[in-house]
Amino acid sequence: MTFIDPRDIAFWLYDWLHADDLTRHSAYADHSRETFDAVLALSEQIATDLFANHYKKSDQVEPRLENGRAKVIPEIKQAMAAYAEAGLFAASFAPEFGGMGLPHVVDTASMAHFMAANIATAAYPMLTAANARVLVKFGTEAQIAGFAKPQIAGRSLGTMCLSEPQAGSSLADIATRAAPDGDDVLGPRYRLTGNKMWISGGDHDITDTIVHLVLAKIPGADGKLPPGTGGITLFIVPSVLADGTRNDISVAGLNHKMGYRGTTNCLLNFGEAGGAVGYRLGEAGQGLAIMFHMMNEARVFVGLGAAALAMRGYRQSLAYARERLQGRAGKDPASAPVPIIRHADVKRMLLAQKALAEGALSLILYCAHLMDRERVAADDAERARAASLLGLLTPVAKSWPSEFGLEANTLAIQVHGGYGYTRDFDVEQIYRDNRINPIHEGTHGIQGIDLLGRKIIRDKGVALAALGEEIVATVTRAEAFADLRSLATGLDIVWDHLVEVVQSLIALNDPARALDNASAFLSAFGHVVVAWLWLDQATVLRAQPAVDPAWADGKLRACRYFIEVELPKVAPLLMTVASLNDVAATMPEDAF
Amino acid sequence: MTFIDPRDIAFWLYDWLHADDLTRHSAYADHSRETFDAVLALSEQIATDLFANHYKKSDQVEPRLENGRAKVIPEIKQAMAAYAEAGLFAASFAPEFGGMGLPHVVDTASMAHFMAANIATAAYPMLTAANARVLVKFGTEAQIAGFAKPQIAGRSLGTMCLSEPQAGSSLADIATRAAPDGDDVLGPRYRLTGNKMWISGGDHDITDTIVHLVLAKIPGADGKLPPGTGGITLFIVPSVLADGTRNDISVAGLNHKMGYRGTTNCLLNFGEAGGAVGYRLGEAGQGLAIMFHMMNEARVFVGLGAAALAMRGYRQSLAYARERLQGRAGKDPASAPVPIIRHADVKRMLLAQKALAEGALSLILYCAHLMDRERVAADDAERARAASLLGLLTPVAKSWPSEFGLEANTLAIQVHGGYGYTRDFDVEQIYRDNRINPIHEGTHGIQGIDLLGRKIIRDKGVALAALGEEIVATVTRAEAFADLRSLATGLDIVWDHLVEVVQSLIALNDPARALDNASAFLSAFGHVVVAWLWLDQATVLRAQPAVDPAWADGKLRACRYFIEVELPKVAPLLMTVASLNDVAATMPEDAF
Repeated sequence: MTFIDPRDIAFWLYDWLHADDLTRHSAYADHSRETFDAVLALSEQIATDLFANHYKKSDQVEPRLENGRAKVIPEIKQAMAAYAEAGLFAASFAPEFGGMGLPHVVDTASMAHFMAANIATAAYPMLTAANARVLVKFGTEAQIAGFAKPQIAGRSLGTMCLSEPQAGSSLADIATRAAPDGDDVLGPRYRLTGNKMWISGGDHDITDTIVHLVLAKIPGADGKLPPGTGGITLFIVPSVLADGTRNDISVAGLNHKMGYRGTTNCLLNFGEAGGAVGYRLGEAGQGLAIMFHMMNEARVFVGLGAAALAMRGYRQSLAYARERLQGRAGKDPASAPVPIIRHADVKRMLLAQKALAEGALSLILYCAHLMDRERVAADDAERARAASLLGLLTPVAKSWPSEFGLEANTLAIQVHGGYGYTRDFDVEQIYRDNRINPIHEGTHGIQGIDLLGRKIIRDKGVALAALGEEIVATVTRAEAFADLRSLATGLDIVWDHLVEVVQSLIALNDPARALDNASAFLSAFGHVVVAWLWLDQATVLRAQPAVDPAWADGKLRACRYFIEVELPKVAPLLMTVASLNDVAATMPEDAF
Repeated sequence: MTFIDPRDIAFWLYDWLHADDLTRHSAYADHSRETFDAVLALSEQIATDLFANHYKKSDQVEPRLENGRAKVIPEIKQAMAAYAEAGLFAASFAPEFGGMGLPHVVDTASMAHFMAANIATAAYPMLTAANARVLVKFGTEAQIAGFAKPQIAGRSLGTMCLSEPQAGSSLADIATRAAPDGDDVLGPRYRLTGNKMWISGGDHDITDTIVHLVLAKIPGADGKLPPGTGGITLFIVPSVLADGTRNDISVAGLNHKMGYRGTTNCLLNFGEAGGAVGYRLGEAGQGLAIMFHMMNEARVFVGLGAAALAMRGYRQSLAYARERLQGRAGKDPASAPVPIIRHADVKRMLLAQKALAEGALSLILYCAHLMDRERVAADDAERARAASLLGLLTPVAKSWPSEFGLEANTLAIQVHGGYGYTRDFDVEQIYRDNRINPIHEGTHGIQGIDLLGRKIIRDKGVALAALGEEIVATVTRAEAFADLRSLATGLDIVWDHLVEVVQSLIALNDPARALDNASAFLSAFGHVVVAWLWLDQATVLRAQPAVDPAWADGKLRACRYFIEVELPKVAPLLMTVASLNDVAATMPEDAF
C-alpha cells in the first residue's frame, strides 16, 4: 500500500508551497515540476519495493556483532544500493558536488516515502546526507573530495558522534580528547581517544567505509580538557584511512532498542590502540557551532520521520477500518456486521490521526520550504526572515511530530483492537520505532528550552513577531470564506493569548523561572503553529475548484477537527506557563 | 527495589479508607490490621522474590507451542506455587470456600504488588480469582466443589473465553455453538463447537488443569443460533474431564504480542473432534449477565494493572533520576554534574508520574473499598449507594489508569533518555506491557459508551448525583484548610461544569449524538474523579500531624499539581462534548 497519499504530496508541494516556482531561480533552472515528480515517483517505487519489503525483518533480525564488527540483514545493503543508483544520496546537493540540485522541499518529500516505508533503513541515508552537507559547507576542497563526495555518491555512509555514556543532553561534559598530530593533505591531523554512545550507523557491513563526524575537546597547555563547551571541536574520523588501513575505532557494544532496530546503534571506542586519526573540520572551538548546523537539519528530519510514521499508522489503520467487520449500524441484531469505519469512535480515531499526521508532515514540508526560501531570497531581508522563521520552527519541527505522531500511532493500534497489539500487524512496531523521536537529537525538554529560552525570550520576540505576521495574513485570507471564519477567529484568539503570555515572560526578566514550564509551552506553541498551517491549507483548498471533492472535504474536516477539538487544548497549557506554576520546580528531592 | 511505597499503601488503606474499621463487621471479625499487614508484607516479599525475578525473562522467552501444547518458562510455575502456598488464590474468598475472607481493598493492595512486579505472571491468578468468584456466586454446589475450589486452592487456573476472531467488542456476533447433551452431576451438559480468540492463559504447563468459562449460543428449535445477544449462555469447560481424559479443546495458535508476553494468549478451537464438554453455569440466556459480573471485576483489575505499571515506571525513573549525573545547577562549567532530578523538566516528569500513578492506584483502591462497603452496608440504601457509585466508576477504573498510566510510562522512558529506549532498562517493557490495557476487557471507546450512555444518560444522572454529594462533601472539608481552598474551588467549578454538560446531554434526548464524543467525556470525567480523590486524600493529610513531613509534602504537591496542571485539561474536552462536535461522526467514508 501507499503510506503517503500522492494527492497530499502534490497539494503540499505545488498548490500550497509552490515548489514549481522555485524553478524560476537560477539554482533550480534545470528542474521543472516534471523532474520533481519523476524523483518522487521513483522514491515511492524504491521505498515500496526495497525499503518496506524488510520492515518486519529488520525488527526481528537485529544487527549483531561478529568478530567485533556489526552485521545487518542483506536487504539493507540492497536498499542502499538502489538508493545510490537512483542518485538519491545526491538529491539535494548542488551539481558541483555531484548532486541533483533539488530543492529541500522535494528532497524532504522524497525522504518521507523512505521513512514511512522503513524508518530504520532510511536513517542511514538521512545521516549520510546531513554529514556530507556539513562537509560541503565547512570542509576544505580535499576534505570534500575525500569525505563528502563518497557519501554523496552513496559509496560511504556517515555518522554523527556527539554523545558519550556520561554526556547526552549535556555536551559540555564530553571527555573525548583530540591531541594534535601534525598536518596532512586532509587537514590538521589529531589523535582521538574517548567513548561515543548512541552512534546510529556507527558500524555495519553495508559499505566498506564510514565517515564519522566526532565532537571532541583539544587539551589546553596544561594537558587538561577545558571545562564547559568552549574547547569543543569537530573532527572527521574515517573508518578506513587513506592508506587502506583501519582507523583505531572499535565497537564496544550494540544497543538493543525498543524499536528502530534496523539501524545499528553503537558504543564506539576511539583510540584504544593509541589514537584514532581525525582531521579537524573548521577551526578549533568551532565544533558546537558547526554541529548545530548539522543538528538543525537532523532535527527537522527527526520530525519528518515521526510525521512519516504517523502517516503510515493512519493509512494502515484506515485500511483496516474499511475491511474489518464488526458491530451494526442500527438496532437490528439480524443485520449484517458493518466495517468498523462506520462507528463514530473509530471515525474519531481516524480523523484525529489524519489531522495530526498530515499536520505534522505539512509542518516539516513548510520548514523545508523555508530552507528553499532562504536560498532563493531576493534580498538579505527576505533571507533573514526565512532564516529567522526556520530557527523558530526548528524545535517545533523536531518535537511536535514526535509528541503527536506517537499519539496518532497509539490510536492506530487502538483502531486495530487486540490485533494491533500483536506483531502480525505493523502498528505496534510503528509505535515502537517512533518512540525514539522525542529523545534523540535533543530531548523534548531541550527543545522546549531552545524554543522558549533562546528563540523567543533571548530573541525578544522578533522571530515570533515575523511568525505573527504570517498567521495574521492567513487569518485574514480565511475570513473571506464563510465556512472558515469561525476557525480563523479561533486561531486568532489563541495566537493573541500566546503572544500575551510570551510578553509577560519577557517582562518577567527571570529566564530560569520562565523556563520551568518550557515543555508545556513547546506543546502549546506547536499546536498553534499546526493550526495555522491547517488553516492556511484550507484557504488554498477553498480558493480553487476541488478536482477531488471527497479528498478536499477530508482535508477541510481535518482542519476543522484540529482547530475545534485540538487547538482548545492549548489554553490549559498556556495557563500553566503564564501562572509560572512552580509546584514541580520547587519540589524538594526528598518529597518524591 | 520496592515498586509501591509501603507508606502509600498504609495511608490509603488505613488513614484514608479505614480498612481496619471493616473488622468490626462479622464478615471480617477474624481479621485485624495486623493480619492485613501480614498479608501485604508477604505479598510484597513473594512479588519481589518470585515475580519480579523473571520480569525480563518472561518478555524475552515467549510462550511457545510444543506438540500442540503451550509451554511457559519454569519461573512462572514456581511463582504460582508460592502464591498458592501463601494462600493468596484464596485471599478474598469466604472461609466456607477455603478462603482467607479478606476485604477487597486488602486483596487489591496485595495484587498491586504482584502486578507491579510482573504483570504477565500476575494475570494468571487475577483471571483465576475472577473465574472462581463467578462460580462461587452462580454455580451449583457440585460446580463449586469441582471447579471453584481447585482454583481457590491454586491447583487449577481459570480463563474467560469470550471473544472470537470475528467478535471482539461485539459479543452479539459470537458463533460458538452449545448443543444440549443430557445432564450429569456437574449440571446440564452441552457439547461446544467454535473458536475463541485472545484467551489469556488459554493453555500452559503451569497447572495440570484449566477451567474455561466459555460464552456460547444455544441453537433454537430451527437449529440456528439466535441473532443478537439474547441466547448467549455461559459454560464451564474444563480442560480435563472428571474421568481424566482431555476435553475436546485444541490450541490453534499463540498470539505474539507487543508486551505482556509471559501470559499465554491463545486461539482455542473447541469441539474439533465432535464437541467439547461444557456444563451450563446459571440459566440459558443468562450468559451476558453473569459474564458482566466477572467482567466488572476484571475491569477494575485491568485498571489496577495499569496503575501498578504506572507506579513501577515512576519509582524506577525516580531512582534513575537520583543517580544519573548530568548538567549543572548553576552556570559554572567547572562545577560537578548534578543528579538529573535537580533539573526542572525532570522534576516535572517525575511529579506528573507521581500524580498520575498514585491517582490511578487510589482510584482502584477506592473502587475496592466500594465493594467492601457494599458488603458491610448497614441497610439496603447504603448498599445501593455503594453499588451505584461502583457501577459509575467501573468504566473509569478500567480506562483512566490505562490511558494515563501509559502517559506516565512514556515519561518514565523520557526521564531515562536514550537508556530508557534500550532493553537494558525496564521502562520500555513496562510501557509495552501497559499498552494492552486500553484494549482488553472492553476498549476505551466501549467504556466511554458504558459510562456516558448507560451509567449516566440512561440512569438519568442518579448515580452521578450520588457522586456529586461525595465531591461536595470533600470540597467542604477541604475549604477548612487555607492551602487547599483554591484547589477545592477549582474542583467545584469543574464539577459544576461537568454536571451542566451532562444535563444538556440528558435534555437533548438523542443518545446517539450525545455519544459521538463519549471517549472525550470518559477522559474528562476520569480527570475530575481523580482530582476529587486527590483532594480527599489531601484533607486527610492536613487533618493529621505528618509523621513523615517530606512524604506528606510530596502527596500535597501531587494533589496541587493534579488540580492546577491536569484538571484544567478537562475544559476543552467538555467543550467538545457539550458542543456536540460532529466533524468526525459525520465524516463521509470516502473523505478519509
